[in-house]
Amino acid sequence: MVYVSRKEHFNAAHKLYNPDWSEEKNKEIFGPCSNANWHGHNFELIVTVKGIPDADTGFVIDLKKLSTIIRTTVIDKLDHKNLNVDVEFMKGKMASTEVLAMEIWKILEPEITKVSKGVLHSIKLYETPRNFVEYLGE
Amino acid sequence: MVYVSRKEHFNAAHKLYNPDWSEEKNKEIFGPCSNANWHGHNFELIVTVKGIPDADTGFVIDLKKLSTIIRTTVIDKLDHKNLNVDVEFMKGKMASTEVLAMEIWKILEPEITKVSKGVLHSIKLYETPRNFVEYLGE
Amino acid sequence: MVYVSRKEHFNAAHKLYNPDWSEEKNKEIFGPCSNANWHGHNFELIVTVKGIPDADTGFVIDLKKLSTIIRTTVIDKLDHKNLNVDVEFMKGKMASTEVLAMEIWKILEPEITKVSKGVLHSIKLYETPRNFVEYLGE
Amino acid sequence: MVYVSRKEHFNAAHKLYNPDWSEEKNKEIFGPCSNANWHGHNFELIVTVKGIPDADTGFVIDLKKLSTIIRTTVIDKLDHKNLNVDVEFMKGKMASTEVLAMEIWKILEPEITKVSKGVLHSIKLYETPRNFVEYLGE
Amino acid sequence: MVYVSRKEHFNAAHKLYNPDWSEEKNKEIFGPCSNANWHGHNFELIVTVKGIPDADTGFVIDLKKLSTIIRTTVIDKLDHKNLNVDVEFMKGKMASTEVLAMEIWKILEPEITKVSKGVLHSIKLYETPRNFVEYLGE
Amino acid sequence: MVYVSRKEHFNAAHKLYNPDWSEEKNKEIFGPCSNANWHGHNFELIVTVKGIPDADTGFVIDLKKLSTIIRTTVIDKLDHKNLNVDVEFMKGKMASTEVLAMEIWKILEPEITKVSKGVLHSIKLYETPRNFVEYLGE
Repeated sequence: MVYVSRKEHFNAAHKLYNPDWSEEKNKEIFGPCSNANWHGHNFELIVTVKGIPDADTGFVIDLKKLSTIIRTTVIDKLDHKNLNVDVEFMKGKMASTEVLAMEIWKILEPEITKVSKGVLHSIKLYETPRNFVEYLGE
Repeated sequence: MVYVSRKEHFNAAHKLYNPDWSEEKNKEIFGPCSNANWHGHNFELIVTVKGIPDADTGFVIDLKKLSTIIRTTVIDKLDHKNLNVDVEFMKGKMASTEVLAMEIWKILEPEITKVSKGVLHSIKLYETPRNFVEYLGE
Repeated sequence: MVYVSRKEHFNAAHKLYNPDWSEEKNKEIFGPCSNANWHGHNFELIVTVKGIPDADTGFVIDLKKLSTIIRTTVIDKLDHKNLNVDVEFMKGKMASTEVLAMEIWKILEPEITKVSKGVLHSIKLYETPRNFVEYLGE
Repeated sequence: MVYVSRKEHFNAAHKLYNPDWSEEKNKEIFGPCSNANWHGHNFELIVTVKGIPDADTGFVIDLKKLSTIIRTTVIDKLDHKNLNVDVEFMKGKMASTEVLAMEIWKILEPEITKVSKGVLHSIKLYETPRNFVEYLGE
Repeated sequence: MVYVSRKEHFNAAHKLYNPDWSEEKNKEIFGPCSNANWHGHNFELIVTVKGIPDADTGFVIDLKKLSTIIRTTVIDKLDHKNLNVDVEFMKGKMASTEVLAMEIWKILEPEITKVSKGVLHSIKLYETPRNFVEYLGE
Repeated sequence: MVYVSRKEHFNAAHKLYNPDWSEEKNKEIFGPCSNANWHGHNFELIVTVKGIPDADTGFVIDLKKLSTIIRTTVIDKLDHKNLNVDVEFMKGKMASTEVLAMEIWKILEPEITKVSKGVLHSIKLYETPRNFVEYLGE
């Protein structure tokens, strides 16, 4: 079993904001992250697939194929977008890095199974080099 | 003469948008960077001051003081903000990295002169690890 | 279950030195790391908390709160200090990265439980970009 | 139990090529990675050993010793070499990062056991900052 | 005057080898860099253009256009290639990083002038994170 | 003219302390950097040599030779040392990064001239990734 990872990136705006709360409560809980006019990040996304390397190719998964899957199903929907407003699969959800990582898992897991015997192991998402999350599908 | 640098960072939303142009022309020239609902970045800012090290301290400028100046006069106005909407000194200006670097120079130059015999040499601003600008005040 | 991480940093002096051993044996085992007049590092500390994101905030733990906890209970005691001499919780212990990571775990685990439903998962400590340790509390 | 890691690096040429396949099939499956005249990478290798820190040294394993083992048994055979042609332990194997990580495990595991009570936990191998694999010996 | 930079990357094989010299002299002068079967690197290329930001766009040069120029005229000819064998513009030249940077300048300078009022200022080329060169066209 | 750079690193302890001042004044001016029991850093040193690439080698300077010079004349005297106490060429001088960079220039300039037609252009010294200096010998 080998764990194979591909790193991609996207830039997006967002804010942390709970629509069931008052402005004051949002400000109190989320601080500057709730700025009404948004802020943004250079997100880094690391997708890890695990499996047994194929005898003919030496690959768990072709990383060019994995890169294409990530770009067409995830990056194209997030890059240069507003996570709260522009992204269909984030509608009605908190735009936190935790929630975003879980939603990216839901999109990528079936796509990876289609092209590879490997299975999705982890979604790691850096909001900044100092703040990041990992989701293992559990 | 020694060149002394301090790196700080801020997260902000922006879009590239010329209000004198139609939506179509903005889209044509700026592409996804003109997304109506904004996008954003983790900006990295490197401020360089040049001067002769002081005989008593060995310093061109006290980097703790420089850090405080950058944070109070620049970072506090940009961090978790929208560059087009929330930032007084960017009002009526294009929110490009080039223009932002030049405006940061204008703010920092007199502040540095107040606390140090060193003079501002360079503003280096990373929009992403792949796209960055430098302004030397010329 | 999502794993949420925060990176902080501190600068410190230390030496590797076993007081039960002769100078010669310390030199033989620890080499230049036992230099009598100390050496030092820019340490990078990554603290990972695991839990289920809260429905109201989308957070496992508020990373601003986590950052404040790490700074007030750990970084303030280590930054610009000598690990062998100045740090109460390292007294009588080997100043290795392994031991330091285990001691940081002991301090942070109860603090995190106080403010979050998440639990401490990992302490990762970089002595240099080439030498680092991880402790999972086991 | 603490996990201790050492990072080393080497530069090598390789190509992805299955000798049982036609040129066309190699080109179809591996694309530019099958370029007949090779291409190359700056590989980064992270070796992780797990164990209980020794009471006298505070070490799971002496990282200087671990570095020497990695350099003499692995790096010296790979650095400034062609993975397909020059490396005895890769003969007859696919020169993929997955396979290389598994072969490095086979070499390092017994060497680490000889000098330490710690055991090899992981081989992490970066082909580029965007493409990397991890092998845990399972 | 603002300096605007774009970072791109490519992977390539090469060797340092002077065909006018004996094998022994090549080995003596270039050491492992002259390995007959090649070695390789992940090269990082930073292209800097200087100019006055355009009043309408805020740009010295559109970095998407600059990226396209670098990819189509330079990266496509170098990526997953052998610098000594596969690259037309390196034929008959030493495959050192110095020479490669100078040749990249020759290619990019006229292309940048075609699409921008900015002029090429610098080619910075990292062979590894530890070894790199810069050429300013002088 | 090409600028060729080599990056090396060393770990050291130091404090900022002016022996002509009282403890109070040292504390006031240098803050935690004057901690009596020292602190320390992972320093990164970038040495840049400029010159015309040699027609036979393609080199401004052989980077392996440059690395050896830096290690034997500078790194060996600084690594795992106390800058204030253990380093002959820093005796009686402020242990600031500015002063250290200038002293490293004095050592390296004649050594580089001995082995190369290139001349020393710059000493860049990172105390942390956030604080760094550059000296051009002027």
